[in-house]
Amino acid sequence: MIKTRASEILNIKYPILMGGMVWVSNSELTAAVSNAGGLGVIGVGLMDQDTLVKEIDAAFAKTDKPFGISFPLARPDYEMMLSAALEKGVKVVVTSAGNPAKAANLLQSAGVVSIHVVANVKMAQKVQDLGYTMVVAEGYEAGGHNGRDEITTMALIPQVVDAVDIPVIAAGGIADSRGMVAAFALGAEAIQMGTRFAATLESPLHENFKQAILNASDTDTVITGRKFNDLTRVIKNKLSQEILEAESAGTDPNQILDMIGIGRTYKASVEGDVVDGSVMSGQIAGMIRELKSVQHIVNELVSGLQPVMHTVSQRLL
Amino acid sequence: MIKTRASEILNIKYPILMGGMVWVSNSELTAAVSNAGGLGVIGVGLMDQDTLVKEIDAAFAKTDKPFGISFPLARPDYEMMLSAALEKGVKVVVTSAGNPAKAANLLQSAGVVSIHVVANVKMAQKVQDLGYTMVVAEGYEAGGHNGRDEITTMALIPQVVDAVDIPVIAAGGIADSRGMVAAFALGAEAIQMGTRFAATLESPLHENFKQAILNASDTDTVITGRKFNDLTRVIKNKLSQEILEAESAGTDPNQILDMIGIGRTYKASVEGDVVDGSVMSGQIAGMIRELKSVQHIVNELVSGLQPVMHTVSQRLL
Repeated sequence: MIKTRASEILNIKYPILMGGMVWVSNSELTAAVSNAGGLGVIGVGLMDQDTLVKEIDAAFAKTDKPFGISFPLARPDYEMMLSAALEKGVKVVVTSAGNPAKAANLLQSAGVVSIHVVANVKMAQKVQDLGYTMVVAEGYEAGGHNGRDEITTMALIPQVVDAVDIPVIAAGGIADSRGMVAAFALGAEAIQMGTRFAATLESPLHENFKQAILNASDTDTVITGRKFNDLTRVIKNKLSQEILEAESAGTDPNQILDMIGIGRTYKASVEGDVVDGSVMSGQIAGMIRELKSVQHIVNELVSGLQPVMHTVSQRLL
Repeated sequence: MIKTRASEILNIKYPILMGGMVWVSNSELTAAVSNAGGLGVIGVGLMDQDTLVKEIDAAFAKTDKPFGISFPLARPDYEMMLSAALEKGVKVVVTSAGNPAKAANLLQSAGVVSIHVVANVKMAQKVQDLGYTMVVAEGYEAGGHNGRDEITTMALIPQVVDAVDIPVIAAGGIADSRGMVAAFALGAEAIQMGTRFAATLESPLHENFKQAILNASDTDTVITGRKFNDLTRVIKNKLSQEILEAESAGTDPNQILDMIGIGRTYKASVEGDVVDGSVMSGQIAGMIRELKSVQHIVNELVSGLQPVMHTVSQRLL
């Protein structure tokens, strides 16, 4: 057991959270992470209420360990959906992609552990002021949707840690014991990983998508969407190239959004079209070379901490 | 003394290098860093040969400790300039901004410690194959000129460490003991800092520039130059706004370069015009709140390592 404020509040063995990922972090992957000693979260994304309720039931059936949901506050029906999840007995809610003020009262009166994902110091302070239990500080290297300020994990974590008293969970660029020790050195009390858990045996991602992560090198991800204020890190492909060319040519953002249309993430994640789909992934994909079970990944991560600390001690002290 | 391969090769007390900074890392700041136990480097930038030779002489006069020069290989007269420096007895050369193959033979036949700055894995491997002694791996959060791949320190360092056998020096987003421990956790054997040494009492930067670093928050730097392939991280001001607006409007890159003209870094660094000048700085500026002496910074950094390691051990082990 690794005891930090974060692992104690969440009542989990290891302070390792899964990032909420649309079409990826379903009840099975969630239960796998929680059963391995971390905290799985069901990525609500665009799920309808029926699906969400079924997924929560399924997670309860697959694990007796704590798990949570990851909830995008941009959804207009956030109140109804969150209430439905709370009624089902969800005890941890990670919110993102929207104003944290919207859900603060609802989460606090429910007495659940509330965590909001931020990408800069000011938002972290706001989240603390709103009474959230913890904050995930996510750097620019992270996969998928990203903050506009492009602050990296290395620069972001210590600045957030200095600015708030609540526990800080580091996200972005972490996939092994080295990254976990680094995050803790910067002041984090837990880590969140997305891409590493997406490339697992239990992950429901299409095999083509998993293969794209395994094949990626350090330079193979890119940010699209600067022009339409939706910075998204993906593995480079035909779609990302088309978006970047349109952005670069000064095409009207609405026209680009029309070109992209909807369902590009589904296309890649579920249908396996990694050419015309949106293959969201973090920069750390370059370090991931093998599909493993979630349990294997968590075991390696935890058993690697002592050797990393030993090497650092030998070199620095 | 902190013993790593890097500090032993460089024969320095602490594996802490100063990044080469145009108009900043002069002989005085170089000597200050070297006298404090790190490795100062004279930033050659656009210096003419006379100035370079005088600066090297001045550094030798101010310190009996090892120091180096930081050399942009994009200079057409690189061979003449490098030869002049080597003749003066310079023993460490950090090259960047250009093809490392150009200088490899010259540096190796001179028998000096050669270090090249890279921003991705492939280039790190090339640098090793060319026979360089070490590599600086610099992340996207770093100030000034940046690689095109936007790989952050957190994602870059472990991937470079896995790919080469020569010592890796981590740069980008490091300004205190937490950052140094994090860099070592990721596998680095030394760190390089720019912005932190730029904001010191000994730094020759104009006071307005130093004040801009002290005033900056985490969100106050931005990358300009994507459109003309010269990604440069600066503190946001009127100039950066103008460049970004022109880039966003799809203005011809050459027209933007004409608008910028030359001398914008001099304007900010020497003349103190932080409105129309280029105020190069890393994202970690948000963490820097006070001007201190170089010795003070190095002492704090080194004495803070043990407490950081203690906290991490307590939490993780």
